[in-house]
Amino acid sequence: MVQPNDNTESSVRHVDVHRVVIVGAGFGGMAAAHALRNAPVEITIVDRHNYHLFQPLLYQVATASLSPAEIAQPIRSILKTQKNVHVILAEVSGVDTAEKAVRTKCGRAIPYDYLLIATGARHSYFGHDDWEANAPGIKSIDDATRVRANILLAFERAEVETGEAARRALLTFVIVGAGPTGVEMAGAIAELARNSITRDFRDIEPSSARIILAEAGPRVLPAFSEPCSREADRVIKAMGVEVRLGTPVTAIDGKGVTIGTEFVAARTIIWAAGVGASPAGQWLGAAVDRAGRVTVKEDFSVPGCEGVYVVGDVAAFKTRTGSYLPGVAPAAKQAGAYVGELIKARVIGRAAPKPFSYADYGCLATIGRKNAVVDFGSARVYGFIGWLIWSIAHVYFLIGFRNRFVVALSWAWSYVTYQRGARLITGTDSEVDK
Amino acid sequence: MVQPNDNTESSVRHVDVHRVVIVGAGFGGMAAAHALRNAPVEITIVDRHNYHLFQPLLYQVATASLSPAEIAQPIRSILKTQKNVHVILAEVSGVDTAEKAVRTKCGRAIPYDYLLIATGARHSYFGHDDWEANAPGIKSIDDATRVRANILLAFERAEVETGEAARRALLTFVIVGAGPTGVEMAGAIAELARNSITRDFRDIEPSSARIILAEAGPRVLPAFSEPCSREADRVIKAMGVEVRLGTPVTAIDGKGVTIGTEFVAARTIIWAAGVGASPAGQWLGAAVDRAGRVTVKEDFSVPGCEGVYVVGDVAAFKTRTGSYLPGVAPAAKQAGAYVGELIKARVIGRAAPKPFSYADYGCLATIGRKNAVVDFGSARVYGFIGWLIWSIAHVYFLIGFRNRFVVALSWAWSYVTYQRGARLITGTDSEVDK
Repeated sequence: MVQPNDNTESSVRHVDVHRVVIVGAGFGGMAAAHALRNAPVEITIVDRHNYHLFQPLLYQVATASLSPAEIAQPIRSILKTQKNVHVILAEVSGVDTAEKAVRTKCGRAIPYDYLLIATGARHSYFGHDDWEANAPGIKSIDDATRVRANILLAFERAEVETGEAARRALLTFVIVGAGPTGVEMAGAIAELARNSITRDFRDIEPSSARIILAEAGPRVLPAFSEPCSREADRVIKAMGVEVRLGTPVTAIDGKGVTIGTEFVAARTIIWAAGVGASPAGQWLGAAVDRAGRVTVKEDFSVPGCEGVYVVGDVAAFKTRTGSYLPGVAPAAKQAGAYVGELIKARVIGRAAPKPFSYADYGCLATIGRKNAVVDFGSARVYGFIGWLIWSIAHVYFLIGFRNRFVVALSWAWSYVTYQRGARLITGTDSEVDK
Repeated sequence: MVQPNDNTESSVRHVDVHRVVIVGAGFGGMAAAHALRNAPVEITIVDRHNYHLFQPLLYQVATASLSPAEIAQPIRSILKTQKNVHVILAEVSGVDTAEKAVRTKCGRAIPYDYLLIATGARHSYFGHDDWEANAPGIKSIDDATRVRANILLAFERAEVETGEAARRALLTFVIVGAGPTGVEMAGAIAELARNSITRDFRDIEPSSARIILAEAGPRVLPAFSEPCSREADRVIKAMGVEVRLGTPVTAIDGKGVTIGTEFVAARTIIWAAGVGASPAGQWLGAAVDRAGRVTVKEDFSVPGCEGVYVVGDVAAFKTRTGSYLPGVAPAAKQAGAYVGELIKARVIGRAAPKPFSYADYGCLATIGRKNAVVDFGSARVYGFIGWLIWSIAHVYFLIGFRNRFVVALSWAWSYVTYQRGARLITGTDSEVDK
């Protein structure tokens, strides 16, 4: 199984324990590590953060409902009883596919026999990288606390602003992109403004805030079925969100955003539109699609890179129906587990598992505190029952009993009182007066 | 009561509603606002953060036990039902005592009839401001999350470090100053290393970490009685903390700290020694003591500054016994409430309250997860009972039911499982490989 690439290292490589390196401790990487828990392998997980993040709830951190620690758990802590795992906090700078080693920015090279890359996606501004400064996206905890500070500071600054136009711009929030994150952000900001903080200000009326959801495509939630889109559209509009469809954003700067040809003065713009793969394709010198995702074979291996697999948002995997595996947590989890099983089978000399088949449990998007759209494909559930399903699904999948319990408690508390538990402006020690 | 300083503004000033400006929403400022809740005044609270912080528990954020949102609550949210309060998020740049207005960095001036300054203390490096970069202190949430990242990163870096000396330096933690914060930090780091994360690493033994508590004075907890100091000394040593007394720190740099003449290689140094007042003295042009605290009269007013009061860590208030009011939360609270009552009495034309008298309920310091030292002056309580008293006192004084409940739950959980709920390295998106 193990094939040394040169003679000098062959003595080291010819050992019984196979080295598996997993880059990225998201849903895909953690599922693979779990699948390999009883395999005779030495696993090294490399991540640039010390925590596994439950990304689907990151928007709740950005809108002050949850604290970062409620949706993140140290990787070490999750894996502490799995003795065949090493965790390394480092940033990967490349892969040497000939030498079979992962290079890190701290200089250390990590040799592998099998490599799984599950580094996920980043924002993509479609060539307009200068938009990022004024329209941050939400992919990491630091992103989310920054957006949280932006939103809360906008209300604070509006309270002391005396110019009417400047105050309007401060109370205008534009979310670019109406996928699940965009819809969820718009709903959460609408609720924050209309319910949670209405009594907190004296000189402004937070509920007068204008919230605009801009989508270049023809409908909100483009990945959902059309009836779901229509329902989400109806609910979000009923919450007072302005929905602009079919018009791309053409400019973003410190003053506002241009939707098509219309300029909207807005001081808080949130990017929920473009997603581009992380640079794994460059590391491997492999073929990538337009979004930068690595083209993988039917077992998630990379053509021309022996022992290398790619899963999750960074992989372009064509299912048997010809469509691509969607960039959602369940798909990454299933793919990670599959590759884990595959490596285990190879290492112990058992037959490879049967070809990967994606079990699609449907899409969910929550809209505010008592509404959600759940699309099971064949069936659809809306409203409060949808919200209940969404809540249970999310709490269930949060790793760690403590987090599940605290999140459930936070939600119950917010639900009963409309309060937000995490309304802190942090990370801005010197930015208050900017 | 209201005495205009010039003729141009007199028409504005001669109104029935008196303007009270409170700078700083800490214990002193909030207590004053509360005392004025039914007074015919217009209160403006100015703070550079949007939250009231329960500072005595900040060390628990720095040691990954609690999340920031668990010990901080939005000022607006606390005061939302108090209709005579305006909250302004701004940084104060000065006070114009002649014009009776507070100047802010955003350019806005806030006129007052009565001004209460309760801006607290900052770190003081006794003239060695260059030490701050390598030995941060813990006064704000951003400070605490930074120190938390430093501590957790030290273990992460030690895990991948191959040089023995460098690894020792990474696993050496020095706390400078053995007041309550220093003792609490040392105990919490010892517990983190010896209990919480022992099973999480593969290449290092976190429990081998060296924790040094350095104090220039002759004993730990110098403000406590001698028996309390001895007990704290005993307990902290039993937890494996090295205590260095009577030797001042003479140098700090990126390599380590020099205690007296001995150099200790350490990558994590925490400053818990010097406290200096915030710049209120400069704003007022008032007399200050050596620590920069404003000398106040027996009613907390500032000689020569009409209508101006100073309370809390930024005030030097001589009690009738000749000692100074200590820089602790209960003293700030009592002083703030006193000044609030005083202003209320003046405004409604009632007799001034009787002279301020400090009710000293004693000192508390917790040491690890089941030990505390409580000094009531006449009585002392140690050990687990002390810890229980400490816990109840702190949870009781945390503002807001939700926070009380979540903190109690977090503690109970940590206590039963030794787990830390908030072990996140954040705010360091680009610093992992430094």
